[in-house]
Amino acid sequence: MDRMVSYIGFAEIQTLLRRIGTARFIAELAKEIEADYRRWSDFQHSPRLASHSATGVIELMPATDGKLFSFKYVNGHPANTASGLLTVTAFGVLAEVCTGYPLLVAEMTVATALRTAAMSALAATYMARSDSRSMAMIGCGAQAEFQAIAFHTLCGIRELRVRDIDPGSMAKVERNLRSVPDLVDLRIVRAETTAAACDGADVITTATADKRNAFILTPSMVRQGMHLNAIGGDCPGKTELDPNILLLPTARIVVEYERQARIEGEIQRLPAGHPVHEFTDVVSGAVTGREHPDEITIFDSVGFALEDHSALRYLLRLLREEGAGTRTIDLVPALRDPRDLFGEVLGEAEVGRQAAVQPPLCATTSS
Amino acid sequence: MDRMVSYIGFAEIQTLLRRIGTARFIAELAKEIEADYRRWSDFQHSPRLASHSATGVIELMPATDGKLFSFKYVNGHPANTASGLLTVTAFGVLAEVCTGYPLLVAEMTVATALRTAAMSALAATYMARSDSRSMAMIGCGAQAEFQAIAFHTLCGIRELRVRDIDPGSMAKVERNLRSVPDLVDLRIVRAETTAAACDGADVITTATADKRNAFILTPSMVRQGMHLNAIGGDCPGKTELDPNILLLPTARIVVEYERQARIEGEIQRLPAGHPVHEFTDVVSGAVTGREHPDEITIFDSVGFALEDHSALRYLLRLLREEGAGTRTIDLVPALRDPRDLFGEVLGEAEVGRQAAVQPPLCATTSS
Repeated sequence: MDRMVSYIGFAEIQTLLRRIGTARFIAELAKEIEADYRRWSDFQHSPRLASHSATGVIELMPATDGKLFSFKYVNGHPANTASGLLTVTAFGVLAEVCTGYPLLVAEMTVATALRTAAMSALAATYMARSDSRSMAMIGCGAQAEFQAIAFHTLCGIRELRVRDIDPGSMAKVERNLRSVPDLVDLRIVRAETTAAACDGADVITTATADKRNAFILTPSMVRQGMHLNAIGGDCPGKTELDPNILLLPTARIVVEYERQARIEGEIQRLPAGHPVHEFTDVVSGAVTGREHPDEITIFDSVGFALEDHSALRYLLRLLREEGAGTRTIDLVPALRDPRDLFGEVLGEAEVGRQAAVQPPLCATTSS
Repeated sequence: MDRMVSYIGFAEIQTLLRRIGTARFIAELAKEIEADYRRWSDFQHSPRLASHSATGVIELMPATDGKLFSFKYVNGHPANTASGLLTVTAFGVLAEVCTGYPLLVAEMTVATALRTAAMSALAATYMARSDSRSMAMIGCGAQAEFQAIAFHTLCGIRELRVRDIDPGSMAKVERNLRSVPDLVDLRIVRAETTAAACDGADVITTATADKRNAFILTPSMVRQGMHLNAIGGDCPGKTELDPNILLLPTARIVVEYERQARIEGEIQRLPAGHPVHEFTDVVSGAVTGREHPDEITIFDSVGFALEDHSALRYLLRLLREEGAGTRTIDLVPALRDPRDLFGEVLGEAEVGRQAAVQPPLCATTSS
């Protein structure tokens, strides 16, 4: 009995994205994430398992809704860039709970960038003013283009005011976005300073690589009615906002998961009791994302395992819908007699053959 | 820059085993495990992360020595056999700590059977009488042949007295072992009862699938001077030995990791303070594995993340030594410019190409 595991490597995610388009991928993934935040209580929210070393951290981020189990492996190694390697890489696994069998092994370096952008724009649909058209993009690293496409698609952003201390990075973002046919109506402005980028923007996205408690945004750059999408501060000692912004009387802060955000988010610089809302309550309607047009809404995002779970499930669904060209790996042996592991490994048994993607065994898993 | 991840699936482990032989594989792996237990304090011993459901458990078992990080994904789903699936499947990942990059993704269903057998026989080289020649094998499931080869190779076992409630399983073990050229001098005896299998044996290995606190072995089956290799009891509520065996005045109990064994091992049925030794102290010589020939030594094994770490490192070494025919997967993108993730995913960049197995980037990792 063949039980091959689906595989999505860098080549496959490239193929998928080129076939269906980044905008559609992000929009559909945002819907999956939204649905999962709506059924927040279905999930076991385990803490991530972190292994720290002198050069960085390796984390395993598990999540399960009782039907599917997922985990993401993700590292963070700032010095990697000096050797031409990525600071952050990731991969993930989706498994069915009823049998414990893995269904999918997938690269998540690209998928994380996509789910982060989907999450940002999804939050903004609840929190930004609906007439928002201009976004300042502070930091033009690996996230910038994905954020731009997400906000263009989901929030109607039509002007992008980019800012980076490296002019080459601003040029890169502009060049890449110009090559996307969907974005013909997106005006791109390169700003000389962060303040100039923010001036007139409705939304500010901060996605810098600053590795300390930085002051990328200060209160003077922030106007009433803005939405701040703060995604670059995502671990202890790494924040982007002047805490005085968070303390503004008109500020409304939403986080993904309060327990994690108090440690890793912008709010790590606030007193423990400072009021914040969790996104699940915004999605469910228990609290509003924005109370009035003059409020300063702040989405303090650090990335949460539930979003990776949504992304892996969406990837598996895409594989099944797209069908052809999917790749499988023989990560789990398919034995005719489970008791005869030895005979099938060392014998001439016809095992481990390549097979097409299969439906899971459990009826409950096929959602 | 190519940074492909090595891959060992079921096909590759078959090829490796057939090329170098199961006996050599187990003997070399036992040496790796022994070396790792000798430097026990180099390892971070994290608790495993378990996700329980109505049908089973999914676990992530991490381990790191500061140079290499590993984790094993393993499930346990007893009802799987009814659908022709394995109760336990596993896979693992080895990564370098200095960059956080994964080096190897490997199937571990077979590798776990091999490392369990290697660990059992390794412990017996310290604990069994050196003149042990006969082993009772209680339970003829997936582990049995691997145990037989390990004890034949490392401990000089020349008689195997097999017992299983299913005669077909005994026949399977005999048939499989008869096909191994190295084992021509192994006498195989099928026993009518567990007591008959144990009668005259120097070593008793219990590897049954009984899912409760069972009494596979009772004190009347145990003679002075025997070594008990108890591997089937490995989770709360699943044990094989009558606790009175453990309480015999001449019994000497060794476990892999006391904290884990108190919860998962045979000793879960003993008072918390009952004296046991940890295998690292036996390997280092701090305590002896056996004090005198009449002692009843008991290796209460539940499987430990360090052994999986040793197995993954050994597999990677084998791949590098064997060279040709190794398979790689593009689990991590290789980008010319790490800041330009978008351009390289959506552009025409030449990334994700297949490449040969490479040495790790960090000098410290190449041990």
